[in-house]
Amino acid sequence: MTKKTIGILGGMGPLATADLFQKIIRMTEAAKDQDHIHVIIDSNTNIPDRTAAILSGGADPVPELNASAKRLEQAGADFLIMPCNTAHYFVDHVRNAVKIPVVSIIESAADQVLAKGKTEALILATDGTGKAGVYDKVFEKKGIRTIYPDPETQKKVMSIIYEGVKAGAPKEGRMQELTSDINGFIKKTGTIAVLACTELPLAVTLYGLAGDFVDATGSLAEAAVRFAGYEVRKDL
Amino acid sequence: MTKKTIGILGGMGPLATADLFQKIIRMTEAAKDQDHIHVIIDSNTNIPDRTAAILSGGADPVPELNASAKRLEQAGADFLIMPCNTAHYFVDHVRNAVKIPVVSIIESAADQVLAKGKTEALILATDGTGKAGVYDKVFEKKGIRTIYPDPETQKKVMSIIYEGVKAGAPKEGRMQELTSDINGFIKKTGTIAVLACTELPLAVTLYGLAGDFVDATGSLAEAAVRFAGYEVRKDL
Repeated sequence: MTKKTIGILGGMGPLATADLFQKIIRMTEAAKDQDHIHVIIDSNTNIPDRTAAILSGGADPVPELNASAKRLEQAGADFLIMPCNTAHYFVDHVRNAVKIPVVSIIESAADQVLAKGKTEALILATDGTGKAGVYDKVFEKKGIRTIYPDPETQKKVMSIIYEGVKAGAPKEGRMQELTSDINGFIKKTGTIAVLACTELPLAVTLYGLAGDFVDATGSLAEAAVRFAGYEVRKDL
Repeated sequence: MTKKTIGILGGMGPLATADLFQKIIRMTEAAKDQDHIHVIIDSNTNIPDRTAAILSGGADPVPELNASAKRLEQAGADFLIMPCNTAHYFVDHVRNAVKIPVVSIIESAADQVLAKGKTEALILATDGTGKAGVYDKVFEKKGIRTIYPDPETQKKVMSIIYEGVKAGAPKEGRMQELTSDINGFIKKTGTIAVLACTELPLAVTLYGLAGDFVDATGSLAEAAVRFAGYEVRKDL
Protein backbone atom coordinates (compact mmCIF):
# COMPACT_ATOMS: atom_id res chain seq x y z
CA MET A 1 0.00 0.00 0.00
CA THR A 2 1.40 3.41 -0.94
CA LYS A 3 2.01 5.71 2.00
CA LYS A 4 -0.12 8.85 1.99
CA THR A 5 0.47 12.34 3.38
CA ILE A 6 -2.22 13.51 5.82
CA GLY A 7 -3.59 17.06 5.60
CA ILE A 8 -5.15 18.37 8.82
CA LEU A 9 -7.59 21.20 8.24
CA GLY A 10 -7.37 22.67 11.72
CA GLY A 11 -7.52 25.68 13.99
CA MET A 12 -11.04 24.79 15.16
CA GLY A 13 -9.72 25.12 17.84
CA PRO A 14 -5.92 24.97 17.86
CA LEU A 15 -5.65 22.77 20.99
CA ALA A 16 -7.99 20.23 19.42
CA THR A 17 -5.79 20.28 16.32
CA ALA A 18 -2.70 19.57 18.44
CA ASP A 19 -4.63 16.79 20.22
CA LEU A 20 -5.46 15.06 16.92
CA PHE A 21 -1.87 15.43 15.66
CA GLN A 22 -0.51 13.91 18.88
CA LYS A 23 -3.00 11.02 18.73
CA ILE A 24 -1.92 10.24 15.16
CA ILE A 25 1.75 10.17 16.23
CA ARG A 26 1.09 8.00 19.28
CA MET A 27 -1.07 5.55 17.29
CA THR A 28 1.52 5.02 14.55
CA GLU A 29 3.71 1.92 14.81
CA ALA A 30 7.14 3.61 14.54
CA ALA A 31 10.66 3.21 15.93
CA LYS A 32 12.21 6.41 14.55
CA ASP A 33 11.27 9.81 13.07
CA GLN A 34 11.29 8.46 9.51
CA ASP A 35 8.74 5.70 10.33
CA HIS A 36 6.10 8.32 11.11
CA ILE A 37 3.47 9.72 8.77
CA HIS A 38 4.11 12.90 6.79
CA VAL A 39 1.48 15.29 8.16
CA ILE A 40 0.77 18.82 6.93
CA ILE A 41 -1.36 20.99 9.20
CA ASP A 42 -3.09 24.26 8.53
CA SER A 43 -4.15 25.58 11.93
CA ASN A 44 -6.23 28.31 10.32
CA THR A 45 -7.58 30.50 13.09
CA ASN A 46 -9.26 32.78 10.55
CA ILE A 47 -12.10 30.27 10.14
CA PRO A 48 -15.21 31.85 11.73
CA ASP A 49 -17.06 30.03 14.52
CA ARG A 50 -19.07 27.13 13.07
CA THR A 51 -21.89 27.07 15.65
CA ALA A 52 -22.47 30.82 15.27
CA ALA A 53 -22.71 30.39 11.49
CA ILE A 54 -25.22 27.54 11.73
CA LEU A 55 -27.46 28.96 14.47
CA SER A 56 -27.21 32.73 14.57
CA GLY A 57 -26.20 34.13 11.20
CA GLY A 58 -22.49 34.37 12.02
CA ALA A 59 -19.88 34.73 9.27
CA ASP A 60 -19.78 31.87 6.76
CA PRO A 61 -16.80 29.57 7.47
CA VAL A 62 -16.88 27.99 3.97
CA PRO A 63 -14.50 30.42 2.19
CA GLU A 64 -11.75 29.92 4.81
CA LEU A 65 -12.42 26.16 5.06
CA ASN A 66 -12.04 25.88 1.29
CA ALA A 67 -8.93 28.08 1.26
CA SER A 68 -7.29 25.79 3.84
CA ALA A 69 -8.35 22.66 1.97
CA LYS A 70 -6.80 23.98 -1.25
CA ARG A 71 -3.65 25.11 0.59
CA LEU A 72 -3.18 21.60 1.99
CA GLU A 73 -3.89 19.94 -1.36
CA GLN A 74 -1.41 22.24 -3.06
CA ALA A 75 1.22 21.49 -0.37
CA GLY A 76 0.95 17.77 -1.14
CA ALA A 77 -1.69 16.31 1.19
CA ASP A 78 -3.23 13.10 -0.23
CA PHE A 79 -6.37 13.34 1.89
CA LEU A 80 -7.91 15.68 4.48
CA ILE A 81 -9.23 15.36 8.01
CA MET A 82 -10.96 18.09 10.03
CA PRO A 83 -10.61 18.04 13.82
CA CYS A 84 -13.92 19.88 14.31
CA ASN A 85 -17.20 17.97 14.42
CA THR A 86 -19.34 21.06 13.81
CA ALA A 87 -17.32 21.88 10.67
CA HIS A 88 -18.60 18.61 9.19
CA TYR A 89 -21.90 20.43 8.62
CA PHE A 90 -19.98 22.05 5.72
CA VAL A 91 -18.08 18.93 4.61
CA ASP A 92 -19.72 18.73 1.17
CA HIS A 93 -18.45 22.23 0.35
CA VAL A 94 -14.92 21.19 1.33
CA ARG A 95 -15.22 17.99 -0.71
CA ASN A 96 -16.26 20.03 -3.75
CA ALA A 97 -13.34 22.45 -3.33
CA VAL A 98 -10.58 19.83 -3.74
CA LYS A 99 -9.80 16.66 -5.68
CA ILE A 100 -8.49 14.72 -2.64
CA PRO A 101 -10.84 12.83 -0.29
CA VAL A 102 -11.99 13.96 3.16
CA VAL A 103 -12.09 11.23 5.85
CA SER A 104 -15.05 12.08 8.11
CA ILE A 105 -14.87 12.20 11.92
CA ILE A 106 -18.59 11.38 12.11
CA GLU A 107 -18.12 8.15 10.13
CA SER A 108 -15.09 7.09 12.19
CA ALA A 109 -16.96 7.76 15.45
CA ALA A 110 -19.93 5.69 14.22
CA ASP A 111 -17.61 2.79 13.39
CA GLN A 112 -16.21 2.84 16.94
CA VAL A 113 -19.69 2.90 18.48
CA LEU A 114 -20.55 -0.19 16.39
CA ALA A 115 -17.23 -1.84 17.29
CA LYS A 116 -18.27 -1.50 20.94
CA GLY A 117 -21.51 -3.33 20.10
CA LYS A 118 -23.78 -0.34 20.77
CA THR A 119 -26.75 0.88 18.73
CA GLU A 120 -27.53 3.99 20.78
CA ALA A 121 -25.20 6.88 21.63
CA LEU A 122 -25.37 10.09 23.66
CA ILE A 123 -23.93 12.90 21.54
CA LEU A 124 -21.89 15.43 23.54
CA ALA A 125 -21.38 18.26 21.08
CA THR A 126 -21.82 21.96 20.39
CA ASP A 127 -25.30 23.42 19.90
CA GLY A 128 -24.37 23.74 16.21
CA THR A 129 -23.57 20.06 15.77
CA GLY A 130 -26.66 19.01 17.70
CA LYS A 131 -29.25 21.36 16.20
CA ALA A 132 -27.98 20.90 12.63
CA GLY A 133 -28.18 17.12 13.06
CA VAL A 134 -24.58 16.62 11.90
CA TYR A 135 -24.42 13.24 13.65
CA ASP A 136 -27.99 12.07 13.16
CA LYS A 137 -28.01 11.25 9.43
CA VAL A 138 -24.65 9.44 9.44
CA PHE A 139 -25.44 7.50 12.61
CA GLU A 140 -28.97 6.58 11.48
CA LYS A 141 -27.59 5.19 8.23
CA LYS A 142 -25.32 2.91 10.25
CA GLY A 143 -28.19 1.87 12.53
CA ILE A 144 -27.24 3.92 15.60
CA ARG A 145 -29.89 5.93 17.47
CA THR A 146 -28.65 9.35 18.68
CA ILE A 147 -29.76 10.91 21.95
CA TYR A 148 -28.87 14.36 23.34
CA PRO A 149 -28.44 15.97 26.77
CA ASP A 150 -31.36 17.90 28.28
CA PRO A 151 -31.15 21.69 27.69
CA GLU A 152 -29.60 22.40 31.10
CA THR A 153 -26.82 19.82 30.65
CA GLN A 154 -26.27 20.98 27.06
CA LYS A 155 -25.58 24.50 28.40
CA LYS A 156 -22.91 23.02 30.66
CA VAL A 157 -21.34 21.16 27.74
CA MET A 158 -21.17 24.46 25.80
CA SER A 159 -19.52 26.20 28.79
CA ILE A 160 -16.83 23.53 29.04
CA ILE A 161 -16.13 23.90 25.31
CA TYR A 162 -16.21 27.70 24.96
CA GLU A 163 -15.32 29.14 28.41
CA GLY A 164 -13.01 26.22 29.18
CA VAL A 165 -10.95 24.61 26.42
CA LYS A 166 -11.39 27.21 23.65
CA ALA A 167 -10.64 30.05 26.09
CA GLY A 168 -7.17 28.68 26.80
CA ALA A 169 -8.14 26.06 29.36
CA PRO A 170 -8.43 28.07 32.59
CA LYS A 171 -8.06 25.76 35.58
CA GLU A 172 -11.19 27.08 37.26
CA GLY A 173 -13.16 25.22 39.90
CA ARG A 174 -16.35 26.18 38.05
CA MET A 175 -15.27 24.09 35.04
CA GLN A 176 -14.66 21.11 37.31
CA GLU A 177 -18.13 21.54 38.86
CA LEU A 178 -19.84 21.69 35.47
CA THR A 179 -17.90 18.61 34.37
CA SER A 180 -18.97 16.72 37.44
CA ASP A 181 -22.63 17.51 36.61
CA ILE A 182 -22.11 16.28 33.03
CA ASN A 183 -20.48 13.08 34.35
CA GLY A 184 -23.58 12.50 36.49
CA PHE A 185 -25.84 12.97 33.47
CA ILE A 186 -23.84 10.52 31.33
CA LYS A 187 -24.02 7.91 34.09
CA LYS A 188 -27.79 8.41 34.42
CA THR A 189 -28.43 7.82 30.70
CA GLY A 190 -26.59 4.49 30.88
CA THR A 191 -25.56 4.66 27.21
CA ILE A 192 -22.20 5.18 25.54
CA ALA A 193 -21.29 8.86 25.08
CA VAL A 194 -19.57 10.23 21.99
CA LEU A 195 -17.12 13.08 22.67
CA ALA A 196 -18.49 14.70 19.52
CA CYS A 197 -16.66 17.99 19.89
CA THR A 198 -12.87 17.96 19.52
CA GLU A 199 -12.47 20.18 22.60
CA LEU A 200 -14.03 17.55 24.85
CA PRO A 201 -11.17 15.00 24.96
CA LEU A 202 -9.10 17.86 26.40
CA ALA A 203 -11.70 18.31 29.15
CA VAL A 204 -10.97 14.71 30.21
CA THR A 205 -7.47 15.59 31.43
CA LEU A 206 -8.17 19.25 32.23
CA TYR A 207 -11.43 18.97 34.15
CA GLY A 208 -12.02 15.28 34.81
CA LEU A 209 -14.74 14.57 32.23
CA ALA A 210 -15.41 10.84 32.70
CA GLY A 211 -17.67 8.05 31.51
CA ASP A 212 -18.07 5.26 28.97
CA PHE A 213 -16.83 7.16 25.91
CA VAL A 214 -16.08 7.00 22.26
CA ASP A 215 -13.53 9.76 21.62
CA ALA A 216 -14.38 11.01 18.11
CA THR A 217 -10.89 12.58 17.77
CA GLY A 218 -9.23 9.28 18.66
CA SER A 219 -11.46 7.45 16.18
CA LEU A 220 -10.46 9.93 13.45
CA ALA A 221 -6.75 9.55 14.30
CA GLU A 222 -7.03 5.78 13.99
CA ALA A 223 -8.97 5.99 10.71
CA ALA A 224 -6.38 8.45 9.34
CA VAL A 225 -3.39 6.25 10.27
CA ARG A 226 -4.99 3.30 8.43
CA PHE A 227 -6.10 5.41 5.45
CA ALA A 228 -2.51 6.70 5.15
CA GLY A 229 -1.34 3.09 4.81
CA TYR A 230 0.33 2.72 8.22
CA GLU A 231 -0.03 0.21 11.04
CA VAL A 232 -1.80 1.18 14.27
CA ARG A 233 0.30 0.44 17.37
CA LYS A 234 -0.74 -2.71 19.12
CA ASP A 235 0.41 -1.71 22.62
CA LEU A 236 -2.10 1.14 23.08
CA MET B 1 1.92 45.39 14.60
CA THR B 2 0.76 43.16 11.76
CA LYS B 3 -0.03 39.60 12.74
CA LYS B 4 2.17 36.99 11.13
CA THR B 5 1.56 33.35 10.18
CA ILE B 6 4.05 30.91 11.74
CA GLY B 7 5.54 28.11 9.62
CA ILE B 8 6.81 25.12 11.62
CA LEU B 9 9.39 23.07 9.73
CA GLY B 10 8.89 19.87 11.69
CA GLY B 11 8.91 16.09 11.80
CA MET B 12 12.28 16.01 13.61
CA GLY B 13 10.70 14.26 15.45
CA PRO B 14 6.92 14.47 15.19
CA LEU B 15 6.28 14.45 18.96
CA ALA B 16 8.69 17.37 19.39
CA THR B 17 6.79 19.20 16.63
CA ALA B 18 3.50 18.63 18.48
CA ASP B 19 5.17 19.81 21.71
CA LEU B 20 6.25 23.11 20.13
CA PHE B 21 2.81 23.64 18.55
CA GLN B 22 1.11 23.05 21.90
CA LYS B 23 3.50 25.41 23.69
CA ILE B 24 2.75 28.16 21.15
CA ILE B 25 -1.00 27.70 21.70
CA ARG B 26 -0.70 27.69 25.49
CA MET B 27 1.56 30.77 25.50
CA THR B 28 -0.78 32.87 23.33
CA GLU B 29 -3.08 35.30 25.12
CA ALA B 30 -6.40 34.20 23.62
CA ALA B 31 -10.03 33.82 24.64
CA LYS B 32 -11.35 32.07 21.53
CA ASP B 33 -10.18 30.12 18.44
CA GLN B 34 -9.90 33.29 16.34
CA ASP B 35 -7.53 34.98 18.85
CA HIS B 36 -4.89 32.31 18.22
CA ILE B 37 -2.01 32.46 15.75
CA HIS B 38 -2.37 31.03 12.24
CA VAL B 39 0.20 28.21 12.23
CA ILE B 40 1.12 26.04 9.25
CA ILE B 41 3.09 22.87 10.06
CA ASP B 42 4.98 20.55 7.77
CA SER B 43 5.75 17.48 9.88
CA ASN B 44 8.05 16.12 7.18
CA THR B 45 9.20 12.69 8.28
CA ASN B 46 11.17 12.25 5.05
CA ILE B 47 13.98 14.44 6.45
CA PRO B 48 16.97 12.14 7.12
CA ASP B 49 18.49 11.95 10.63
CA ARG B 50 20.56 15.09 11.32
CA THR B 51 23.10 13.57 13.71
CA ALA B 52 23.84 10.70 11.29
CA ALA B 53 24.42 13.24 8.50
CA ILE B 54 26.81 15.35 10.59
CA LEU B 55 28.82 12.53 12.18
CA SER B 56 28.69 9.40 10.06
CA GLY B 57 28.04 10.27 6.43
CA GLY B 58 24.28 9.72 6.60
CA ALA B 59 21.94 11.08 3.92
CA ASP B 60 22.00 14.87 3.54
CA PRO B 61 18.89 16.42 5.14
CA VAL B 62 19.26 19.73 3.26
CA PRO B 63 17.13 18.86 0.17
CA GLU B 64 14.11 17.83 2.32
CA LEU B 65 14.66 20.73 4.77
CA ASN B 66 14.64 23.15 1.85
CA ALA B 67 11.61 21.47 0.24
CA SER B 68 9.66 21.90 3.50
CA ALA B 69 10.80 25.49 3.90
CA LYS B 70 9.60 26.33 0.38
CA ARG B 71 6.33 24.44 0.91
CA LEU B 72 5.61 26.51 4.03
CA GLU B 73 6.60 29.78 2.36
CA GLN B 74 4.36 28.95 -0.59
CA ALA B 75 1.48 28.09 1.76
CA GLY B 76 1.68 31.55 3.32
CA ALA B 77 4.06 31.32 6.31
CA ASP B 78 5.62 34.70 7.17
CA PHE B 79 8.55 33.18 9.05
CA LEU B 80 9.89 29.74 9.93
CA ILE B 81 10.86 27.92 13.10
CA MET B 82 12.48 24.47 13.31
CA PRO B 83 11.77 22.30 16.38
CA CYS B 84 15.08 20.42 16.03
CA ASN B 85 18.26 21.82 17.54
CA THR B 86 20.54 19.59 15.46
CA ALA B 87 18.88 20.80 12.24
CA HIS B 88 20.18 24.30 13.08
CA TYR B 89 23.57 23.05 11.87
CA PHE B 90 21.99 23.46 8.40
CA VAL B 91 20.10 26.71 9.14
CA ASP B 92 22.06 28.82 6.63
CA HIS B 93 21.00 26.48 3.81
CA VAL B 94 17.36 26.87 4.86
CA ARG B 95 17.75 30.66 5.09
CA ASN B 96 19.15 30.71 1.56
CA ALA B 97 16.28 28.59 0.21
CA VAL B 98 13.47 31.03 1.14
CA LYS B 99 12.78 34.77 1.32
CA ILE B 100 11.13 34.63 4.77
CA PRO B 101 13.18 34.74 8.00
CA VAL B 102 14.03 31.78 10.26
CA VAL B 103 13.78 32.44 14.02
CA SER B 104 16.53 30.36 15.65
CA ILE B 105 16.00 28.06 18.64
CA ILE B 106 19.65 28.50 19.62
CA GLU B 107 19.28 32.28 19.85
CA SER B 108 16.03 32.04 21.83
CA ALA B 109 17.62 29.56 24.26
CA ALA B 110 20.62 31.86 24.75
CA ASP B 111 18.29 34.77 25.54
CA GLN B 112 16.56 32.71 28.25
CA VAL B 113 19.88 31.67 29.80
CA LEU B 114 20.84 35.36 29.99
CA ALA B 115 17.39 36.28 31.34
CA LYS B 116 18.10 33.89 34.22
CA GLY B 117 21.35 35.75 34.91
CA LYS B 118 23.62 32.86 33.91
CA THR B 119 26.81 32.96 31.84
CA GLU B 120 27.49 29.20 31.79
CA ALA B 121 25.19 26.44 30.57
CA LEU B 122 25.26 22.64 30.38
CA ILE B 123 24.11 21.62 26.90
CA LEU B 124 21.97 18.47 26.86
CA ALA B 125 21.78 17.60 23.17
CA THR B 126 22.41 14.97 20.50
CA ASP B 127 25.97 13.98 19.60
CA GLY B 128 25.44 15.86 16.33
CA THR B 129 24.54 19.15 18.03
CA GLY B 130 27.42 18.79 20.50
CA LYS B 131 30.22 17.69 18.17
CA ALA B 132 29.25 20.16 15.43
CA GLY B 133 29.29 22.99 17.97
CA VAL B 134 25.80 24.17 16.98
CA TYR B 135 25.37 25.90 20.35
CA ASP B 136 28.94 27.06 20.97
CA LYS B 137 29.26 29.87 18.43
CA VAL B 138 25.87 31.44 19.15
CA PHE B 139 26.30 31.15 22.93
CA GLU B 140 29.89 32.45 22.89
CA LYS B 141 28.78 35.52 20.92
CA LYS B 142 26.25 36.26 23.67
CA GLY B 143 28.87 35.72 26.39
CA ILE B 144 27.70 32.29 27.60
CA ARG B 145 30.21 29.48 28.19
CA THR B 146 28.97 26.04 27.10
CA ILE B 147 29.83 22.83 28.93
CA TYR B 148 28.91 19.24 27.97
CA PRO B 149 28.21 15.95 29.77
CA ASP B 150 31.05 13.43 30.16
CA PRO B 151 31.01 10.69 27.46
CA GLU B 152 29.16 8.18 29.67
CA THR B 153 26.35 10.62 30.54
CA GLN B 154 26.19 11.78 26.90
CA LYS B 155 25.46 8.16 25.87
CA LYS B 156 22.55 8.13 28.32
CA VAL B 157 21.21 11.39 26.87
CA MET B 158 21.33 9.82 23.38
CA SER B 159 19.46 6.72 24.63
CA ILE B 160 16.68 8.83 26.12
CA ILE B 161 16.34 10.71 22.82
CA TYR B 162 16.56 7.82 20.34
CA GLU B 163 15.41 4.68 22.21
CA GLY B 164 12.94 6.67 24.31
CA VAL B 165 11.11 9.63 22.82
CA LYS B 166 11.87 9.13 19.10
CA ALA B 167 10.99 5.42 19.36
CA GLY B 168 7.43 6.24 20.40
CA ALA B 169 8.07 6.85 24.09
CA PRO B 170 8.13 3.32 25.56
CA LYS B 171 7.40 3.46 29.27
CA GLU B 172 10.41 1.33 30.18
CA GLY B 173 12.07 1.27 33.58
CA ARG B 174 15.45 1.48 31.84
CA MET B 175 14.58 4.94 30.50
CA GLN B 176 13.66 6.08 34.00
CA GLU B 177 16.99 4.75 35.36
CA LEU B 178 19.01 6.52 32.68
CA THR B 179 17.07 9.71 33.38
CA SER B 180 17.79 9.45 37.07
CA ASP B 181 21.55 9.19 36.29
CA ILE B 182 21.32 12.27 34.05
CA ASN B 183 19.48 14.16 36.82
CA GLY B 184 22.35 13.32 39.19
CA PHE B 185 24.90 14.61 36.69
CA ILE B 186 23.01 17.90 36.19
CA LYS B 187 22.86 18.42 39.94
CA LYS B 188 26.61 17.73 40.30
CA THR B 189 27.57 20.33 37.69
CA GLY B 190 25.62 23.00 39.59
CA THR B 191 24.96 25.02 36.41
CA ILE B 192 21.77 25.65 34.45
CA ALA B 193 21.03 22.93 31.85
CA VAL B 194 19.64 23.67 28.39
CA LEU B 195 17.23 21.04 27.05
CA ALA B 196 18.95 21.49 23.70
CA CYS B 197 17.19 18.65 21.91
CA THR B 198 13.46 19.01 21.26
CA GLU B 199 12.84 15.41 22.42
CA LEU B 200 14.10 16.22 25.93
CA PRO B 201 11.16 18.31 27.23
CA LEU B 202 9.06 15.20 26.53
CA ALA B 203 11.40 13.18 28.75
CA VAL B 204 10.45 15.50 31.62
CA THR B 205 6.88 14.19 31.76
CA LEU B 206 7.63 10.71 30.34
CA TYR B 207 10.68 9.74 32.39
CA GLY B 208 11.08 12.36 35.12
CA LEU B 209 14.00 14.34 33.69
CA ALA B 210 14.51 17.09 36.30
CA GLY B 211 16.80 19.99 37.16
CA ASP B 212 17.35 23.74 36.78
CA PHE B 213 16.45 23.99 33.07
CA VAL B 214 16.04 26.26 30.14
CA ASP B 215 13.66 24.45 27.78
CA ALA B 216 14.88 25.44 24.30
CA THR B 217 11.50 24.46 22.78
CA GLY B 218 9.66 26.70 25.26
CA SER B 219 12.07 29.56 24.51
CA LEU B 220 11.38 29.15 20.77
CA ALA B 221 7.61 29.07 21.33
CA GLU B 222 7.81 32.33 23.28
CA ALA B 223 10.06 33.98 20.68
CA ALA B 224 7.69 32.86 17.90
CA VAL B 225 4.56 34.20 19.64
CA ARG B 226 6.23 37.62 20.02
CA PHE B 227 7.68 37.60 16.49
CA ALA B 228 4.19 36.82 15.16
CA GLY B 229 2.94 40.00 16.86
CA TYR B 230 0.93 38.37 19.66
CA GLU B 231 0.93 38.77 23.45
CA VAL B 232 2.42 36.07 25.67
CA ARG B 233 0.01 34.92 28.39
CA LYS B 234 0.79 36.42 31.75
CA ASP B 235 -0.66 33.61 33.88
CA LEU B 236 1.87 30.94 32.85
